[in-house]
Amino acid sequence: MAKKSKSKKLVIGIDLGGTNVVAVLVDTSGKVKSYVHFPNESAKGPEHVIRNIADNVKALVKKSGLAMKDIWRAGIGSPGPLDSKKGIIMGAVNLPGWTRVLLKASLEKQLGVGVGVDNDANCAAYGEQWVGAAKGASNVVGITLGTGVGGGIIIDNKLVRGANYNAAEIGHTSLNPDGRLCKCGAKGCLEQYASASAIAESAREAIRKGASSMMTEFVKGDISKITSKTVYEAMVQNDKTAVVVWDEFIKYLAAGVANQINGLNPEVVVIAGGVINAGDRLFKPLKEAVRKQTFALTFSAAKIVPAKLGELAGAIGAAGVVINEGEFYNLK
Amino acid sequence: MAKKSKSKKLVIGIDLGGTNVVAVLVDTSGKVKSYVHFPNESAKGPEHVIRNIADNVKALVKKSGLAMKDIWRAGIGSPGPLDSKKGIIMGAVNLPGWTRVLLKASLEKQLGVGVGVDNDANCAAYGEQWVGAAKGASNVVGITLGTGVGGGIIIDNKLVRGANYNAAEIGHTSLNPDGRLCKCGAKGCLEQYASASAIAESAREAIRKGASSMMTEFVKGDISKITSKTVYEAMVQNDKTAVVVWDEFIKYLAAGVANQINGLNPEVVVIAGGVINAGDRLFKPLKEAVRKQTFALTFSAAKIVPAKLGELAGAIGAAGVVINEGEFYNLK
Repeated sequence: MAKKSKSKKLVIGIDLGGTNVVAVLVDTSGKVKSYVHFPNESAKGPEHVIRNIADNVKALVKKSGLAMKDIWRAGIGSPGPLDSKKGIIMGAVNLPGWTRVLLKASLEKQLGVGVGVDNDANCAAYGEQWVGAAKGASNVVGITLGTGVGGGIIIDNKLVRGANYNAAEIGHTSLNPDGRLCKCGAKGCLEQYASASAIAESAREAIRKGASSMMTEFVKGDISKITSKTVYEAMVQNDKTAVVVWDEFIKYLAAGVANQINGLNPEVVVIAGGVINAGDRLFKPLKEAVRKQTFALTFSAAKIVPAKLGELAGAIGAAGVVINEGEFYNLK
Repeated sequence: MAKKSKSKKLVIGIDLGGTNVVAVLVDTSGKVKSYVHFPNESAKGPEHVIRNIADNVKALVKKSGLAMKDIWRAGIGSPGPLDSKKGIIMGAVNLPGWTRVLLKASLEKQLGVGVGVDNDANCAAYGEQWVGAAKGASNVVGITLGTGVGGGIIIDNKLVRGANYNAAEIGHTSLNPDGRLCKCGAKGCLEQYASASAIAESAREAIRKGASSMMTEFVKGDISKITSKTVYEAMVQNDKTAVVVWDEFIKYLAAGVANQINGLNPEVVVIAGGVINAGDRLFKPLKEAVRKQTFALTFSAAKIVPAKLGELAGAIGAAGVVINEGEFYNLK
């Protein structure tokens, strides 16, 4: 009876990104009914951002022929660090003025429904485990390659949050204590080698040091315009510089993935971010390199797959955690 | 009522090591009533080893004025890989002939009680979390520095076993994909830099390459006799070679610990093994180096402490998991 009633309920999932916000309306099975994306307008400060989110969510609900009273709960994924128990954003590098922002309380007041707040990368991984590329697996690691490298860990079907809700900073696990200095202050972070930004920066660095490459022509001499996609496009044409950069990227990403596999023995590692469009040119050498860095039994248990939910992953996952782990957020 | 009856029960915990076996008799609060250790006699093969363990356990029970009917359950920690669900040892490098050994079934038959089998390093970490250095913490990482580097992970008070029970191989997480080749086939494993064996080997290598050191005198010229303790003793006397080796060890151990802290955000990281006798000379620089490699909030949540249970940790933990997670092992 309770289950039947839950299965009819509708939930809002929100992904608050550094530039844009995505909001989805889903049912409790994770099926997306409708969605919207809009600029976060973060320059105007947290109060405005939250009001803007609430307005857009209400418009989405209305456009779907519903009222807010038809909505059971809402979940929001946000950059951190944050206190997901209390729903407070402690700080967020890409959101000016976001220090100790009471996101849960503010959104609950404006939306009139219970709200759960969690880390954006955690939500993205949860979305893929719940209804995406890792559906059906109980132990999952999600790694998103973007400006940085985000991570999310699900063990025994539950999101791993850690002692003060800062777990799964996989992008900031080190692959060389003498390696590249990261913005976080540590050395050799995975993010410094395997983010989309790092791939592009490695290419720029090689060219600055005098390597000749078709990438220079691709961007008409303005190497600041090189992206990870530029590297990929030159690599598939066997551009020597691009191949070296790509191989280096794969080597470090593989070490990062292997560490998660040897560390947590997951059924699935989901790789997300635009770079996954490289397909086999990414996944084939990645799997081969991971195989060499892991135990045979552990490797055999672990699928390494591209994400399925694209830009909706975080929002869908934010809905998923408030549906399945509502008691953590003290939701009725 | 059920709880009261459980609290009166007595349980056997066993730690099957590469050389010795430790067996403890504990109550369900983890209090050790008595214990015994004895050689594993592994040269005589698995059947003999299991009978030898059963005989010693029965003798321990008898010596404690009890009969096997007074024993509720038994747990055994073993080298792996293993299938802890079925209680089968798939293989064990230091135990000749141990391929697909039905350890659970054999011990249950000989002891007449339900038996749970789990990874030895997992059990050691669990023991420390249950009643040792991390008592009261829900999220704990245990790292044991010995011949190799063992690991165990507890999240939300539950042992993390992974998809096929091979999780927490922290010694085989890589800190350099171009680093030292490990016996496991991977490169740059933590074990290659932070095990007691690695510390000794780094010292030997430096001396072989011509470094002068008081360590050579300590072992009367036979550098094969250098151990991690030799390195420690020379280091505290400011022996230059020993200081370099020790600092290198700390650097890599810190990176390994930092990766667990950024990855899992635990309340406690327990470091075990003889090396912890170095006390402040280990823990002070270790904590400082970990601080630099982690986020401030995450670091602030994580105590880094020496193990408390010594050589009994694995046996106590093996008892603990069958007491607290009996349903996993299908124990009545």
